[in-house]
Amino acid sequence: MTSYRITLLAGDGIGPEIMAVAVAVLKAVAPQFGLTFDFTSALMGGAAIDATGDPLPPETLVTCRQSDAVLLAAIGGYKWDNLPRHLRPETGLLGLRAGLGLFANLRPAQILPQLIDASSLKPEIVSGVDIMVVRELTGGIYFGQPKGIFSTASGEKRGVNTMAYTESEIDRIGRVAFETARQRGKKLCSVDKANVLEVSQLWRDRINGLAQDYPDVELSHLYVDNAAMQLVRAPKQFDTIVTGNLFGDILSDAAAMLTGSIGMLPSASLGSAGPGVFEPVHGSAPDIAGQNKANPLAMVLSAAMMLRYGLHQPGPAQAIEQAVFTVLDQGKRTRDLMGPGMTLLGCQEMGQALLDVL
Amino acid sequence: MTSYRITLLAGDGIGPEIMAVAVAVLKAVAPQFGLTFDFTSALMGGAAIDATGDPLPPETLVTCRQSDAVLLAAIGGYKWDNLPRHLRPETGLLGLRAGLGLFANLRPAQILPQLIDASSLKPEIVSGVDIMVVRELTGGIYFGQPKGIFSTASGEKRGVNTMAYTESEIDRIGRVAFETARQRGKKLCSVDKANVLEVSQLWRDRINGLAQDYPDVELSHLYVDNAAMQLVRAPKQFDTIVTGNLFGDILSDAAAMLTGSIGMLPSASLGSAGPGVFEPVHGSAPDIAGQNKANPLAMVLSAAMMLRYGLHQPGPAQAIEQAVFTVLDQGKRTRDLMGPGMTLLGCQEMGQALLDVL
Ligand SMILES: CC(C)[C@H](C(=O)O)[C@@H](O)C(=O)O
Ligand SMILES: CC(C)[C@H](C(=O)O)[C@@H](O)C(=O)O
Repeated sequence: MTSYRITLLAGDGIGPEIMAVAVAVLKAVAPQFGLTFDFTSALMGGAAIDATGDPLPPETLVTCRQSDAVLLAAIGGYKWDNLPRHLRPETGLLGLRAGLGLFANLRPAQILPQLIDASSLKPEIVSGVDIMVVRELTGGIYFGQPKGIFSTASGEKRGVNTMAYTESEIDRIGRVAFETARQRGKKLCSVDKANVLEVSQLWRDRINGLAQDYPDVELSHLYVDNAAMQLVRAPKQFDTIVTGNLFGDILSDAAAMLTGSIGMLPSASLGSAGPGVFEPVHGSAPDIAGQNKANPLAMVLSAAMMLRYGLHQPGPAQAIEQAVFTVLDQGKRTRDLMGPGMTLLGCQEMGQALLDVL
Repeated sequence: MTSYRITLLAGDGIGPEIMAVAVAVLKAVAPQFGLTFDFTSALMGGAAIDATGDPLPPETLVTCRQSDAVLLAAIGGYKWDNLPRHLRPETGLLGLRAGLGLFANLRPAQILPQLIDASSLKPEIVSGVDIMVVRELTGGIYFGQPKGIFSTASGEKRGVNTMAYTESEIDRIGRVAFETARQRGKKLCSVDKANVLEVSQLWRDRINGLAQDYPDVELSHLYVDNAAMQLVRAPKQFDTIVTGNLFGDILSDAAAMLTGSIGMLPSASLGSAGPGVFEPVHGSAPDIAGQNKANPLAMVLSAAMMLRYGLHQPGPAQAIEQAVFTVLDQGKRTRDLMGPGMTLLGCQEMGQALLDVL
């Protein structure tokens, strides 16, 4: 019997509803694979602000550090949008990434054949798209110093952020990306803006340097503007993409939207040691919170990513993914993906459908 | 008789071929509107590197400054890709923007009904799309100091660029954007990353401040990751977009690619005084250079933008745009846009077709 301690950060909006489904699914697969899960809930985001005044209370970080993996549902909402920055839900998220050293963010964007019509792109352009964006998550312009709003000599204000990467930061994410590409289609595209930015020049040089350790992976480079174009024009050309924090934020969302069904997309954030954080790509959807309308499948697939990438348990990960495909094959859909001839389910009913399959 | 001095920067690759078409078209419309053009050619990009060792020779900048407007075709190519950065064609382009103070880049992305099938998006998603991206062009991370590759205390290299905006830089581009929106659909979406970046926080505050001078324009804000998503998901929601240099680089290219026909898209770069620069969005396409295969229509539409935004001559601008629509209606296409039932034309023949209409 292998036992894992899992921290649950249900967060805000639809977070608690979709988290409940993921937990039920994990409990259902556990015995079949000789696993037990020990779940501990902790506060984060708006829920934590309301309860403690801090979007990431120190106890939460301690609980996360003591666990084997962290499931995060969704944070944020209108209610907290006008607080000063250090009290905003997003600040808690950045603190969690930094606090757990989660430098590698894996963001798959895969078109499922059952959902191809959800895409705003033509089916022939997106059928078979299967992209993994490997985004650097604890460096770059998100954390670079100096940053702030300063006064200039002339008395004007000047806003400043610094995009910076060291060689070791680039190497570390580069290796994760090459390893990831090796497990997939063996094609890695590194995205930068090396024709303008020095930080990108260093990025490109280091990625080129790593390539000799991965002769089986075909490496290419694109400028970020061209990458954004190519994702729209011909997304099938991509297998694995590696890029910095800011470009990864933009491109992983663009890639996600190619599928038309971001209610289906999970993500994993990993460090070099300690627990990873697994969360859906979508937000907290405050407008439908508490109405049993949310799509829990991205959260469930995040639990599968946790099993695969965080706990190295591919068996139950695959069982969960298979259950998701099966309910889709059965024509079961939540509101966001509803279409003619399909069966509309609420969040809880979708969870039950998964349990019925498992 | 109004006379204008126009500097021609034909540049590299297909540049000279498409420039020749634009010049012929300008000469054809001139007499009908009582205009004369005095054209002067100057060196820029790879052509300038080969001739003088400098991608933007000082004489070129002098010639541009003495003119009423600058037409630029395309620069760059494999041949110059491995030169040190200060000798690269793109460095000449950045120097031209800085040297002429071209802080406002207008990048339209419009779906023409004749070319809707060229889009990788479904026709119902893109039909009627008409977006103007107003990109700040002489500030932000493209020019911010400090920048470079430095050694850290531990002996590692660290690449650094600085994203910075002052209040006056933001106000200046903000006003151009509000004025532009006012001439169009009266909707302005400002794009930033204010949930993470201080420079974006200042950006958002200043844009909000300007809004009171433009009560007839409806202002909204999006984070850049969400903007990239929304462009893919539902591009018709956008009218005018304003954003900084880097985000504008990425989003204007993504918006351009929604049309599927970047061989059709012009751009204008304007300063507060002095000549603007007008150029197609596409590159120099070295693979088809000199083969009479290039699509000259983006270059021709850039000449129309020059008339409209640079020389304040909407009459001939409209005549040129109308001629372009007419040849498309006639089913005439260059190779990049060729489709069933259409007539394939070379670059020169497309130019002749325009002259026949004018
Ligand atoms: C909420 C925000 C701080 C965050 C980011 O920019 O990283 C989000 O967009 C993401 O991609 O996880
Ligand atoms: C060539 C490059 C320097 C340039 C830019 O990044 O501004 C180009 O991508 C553009 O958009 O005009």
